[in-house]
Amino acid sequence: MSDKIFVFGHQKPDTDAIASSYGFSYLSNHRPVGALNTECVALGTPNEETQFALDYFGVEAPRVVTSAAAEGVDTVILTDHNEFQQSIADIASLNIFGVVDHHRVANFNTASPLFMTIEPVGSASSIVYRKFLEAGVEIPREVAGLLLSGLISDTLLLKSPTTHATDHKVAEELAKIAGVDLQEYGMAMLKAGTNLDNKSADELIDIDAKTFELNGSRIRIAQVNTVEIQDVLSRLHDVKVAIKKAMEVEHYDDFVFMITDIVNSNSEIVEIGSHKDKVEAAFHFTLEDDHAFLAGAVSRKKQVVPQLTEEFNK
Amino acid sequence: MSDKIFVFGHQKPDTDAIASSYGFSYLSNHRPVGALNTECVALGTPNEETQFALDYFGVEAPRVVTSAAAEGVDTVILTDHNEFQQSIADIASLNIFGVVDHHRVANFNTASPLFMTIEPVGSASSIVYRKFLEAGVEIPREVAGLLLSGLISDTLLLKSPTTHATDHKVAEELAKIAGVDLQEYGMAMLKAGTNLDNKSADELIDIDAKTFELNGSRIRIAQVNTVEIQDVLSRLHDVKVAIKKAMEVEHYDDFVFMITDIVNSNSEIVEIGSHKDKVEAAFHFTLEDDHAFLAGAVSRKKQVVPQLTEEFNK
Repeated sequence: MSDKIFVFGHQKPDTDAIASSYGFSYLSNHRPVGALNTECVALGTPNEETQFALDYFGVEAPRVVTSAAAEGVDTVILTDHNEFQQSIADIASLNIFGVVDHHRVANFNTASPLFMTIEPVGSASSIVYRKFLEAGVEIPREVAGLLLSGLISDTLLLKSPTTHATDHKVAEELAKIAGVDLQEYGMAMLKAGTNLDNKSADELIDIDAKTFELNGSRIRIAQVNTVEIQDVLSRLHDVKVAIKKAMEVEHYDDFVFMITDIVNSNSEIVEIGSHKDKVEAAFHFTLEDDHAFLAGAVSRKKQVVPQLTEEFNK
Repeated sequence: MSDKIFVFGHQKPDTDAIASSYGFSYLSNHRPVGALNTECVALGTPNEETQFALDYFGVEAPRVVTSAAAEGVDTVILTDHNEFQQSIADIASLNIFGVVDHHRVANFNTASPLFMTIEPVGSASSIVYRKFLEAGVEIPREVAGLLLSGLISDTLLLKSPTTHATDHKVAEELAKIAGVDLQEYGMAMLKAGTNLDNKSADELIDIDAKTFELNGSRIRIAQVNTVEIQDVLSRLHDVKVAIKKAMEVEHYDDFVFMITDIVNSNSEIVEIGSHKDKVEAAFHFTLEDDHAFLAGAVSRKKQVVPQLTEEFNK
């Protein structure tokens, strides 16, 4: 085994997963005291939004690994996740040196004490930014650009209710170092992730999808970002066929598909399944042709899952 | 439910559990931004060492609670522990707002993101000290005194191998604020915890005892601190009777009893059970009348458990 430490974000990496691991790996290697020998790797290839950010700041995508042991590495640092099922395949047999994350803690355990920082803020990149300040290490332009991209991605340009009060200042500072206009760059990056034309309907409903158990029912909730809801709605017939196929194979009771307008911060909700009444009650709307408009909703975590959970528990 | 947040250390609190929770509660209530309404409570009464520290710095022992809900509180902050079985009885149904700890992470999960700081340092009090610096909050003398006491207790006055390189400076700084001589105060406090005269043999072997599963064998490892190993060895007959009784009731395969000399940093190891050969091999010594001297050993976590684990796995 080498003394190298892998730093990586979660499986199916999004921009915050790649950005926070890239930034934290850089910081770990450049600490004035206690510098480490780390390499930023990834558990998958970047999506189009992340690739836009990498290209914009001239950073090569981290190489993809699927096992640490296979690379001769036995020690790792996780960013933007902690749950083992979202991590590298051999996580249970590795030394976890550190974690930097902004999610709940679950399905996580270590044999020894470690460095672990969890904060309920908008992105893991926000925490990595503060770690640079604490360590007194200068943030290179391209690292600042990536961290900014991670924060913009996870908060939909600071509009999602997952945004923390402290994130606005973080975004400002990072934009300054990165030399970009926050609004202009942010919207360009988010738009780069909304090119859905070359995705099949099967792919659309699986880009960002999670399964939830709500009071005994099995509910799939998927989300896509777009600049024009109508562009996705025009493919509704094919999307419904894909959803029904997935429901049959995976035995979902309901499939909720959020089409999120990142420009105006609204969503169209498509619902297929046996609990239409509960979905309508949760969001105080009436489905027509299996879909309805939900003003102001952009966050699955804060604006959809809790409302459905409450309704299903009635 | 009130908006009050309970802050507490683990069950059977030691000095670091009480000190870190007391200090972090004070800090949480005095942050210039985001101050909380917290109360430091405890899951048990202070031991004699902790009581010495509390008396020295004129601090009242935190009141003992066993359930948060019973007190109208639904949100908590944990210090010096994270594993649910070491926490308050109703932990699984509470909101965990934060954790400050220096142990491995296990048997811990939350429904939502939280503030969590884990560092592999000598005490939870060391981390709380750094949190004061980060927040720019002045540390009152009595808080500094307690945090210092927590660090001294967990590291046996910075001599245990669990001491982190950064802990020496933390101890110096805290001693300055507390207005005490580190060595003099530290030894007085540790000695206060070594008054074993009024403890029965049954109590002696249960003051600080943990059970480990080593390759299918069930091993109990207990530890007492003393300033004179001979004082405890003179009670060896009664101690052995107590150990054998405990082994019968709890079905331990072996009982390892560490008598630790906190002045000279050595331990006498008493071993009763069916794996005397493995214990002898692990520590490269020969038991006579079921005990032997282990030079330089003071830490169960670092100098006993790993060595036994390796030997039992052979």
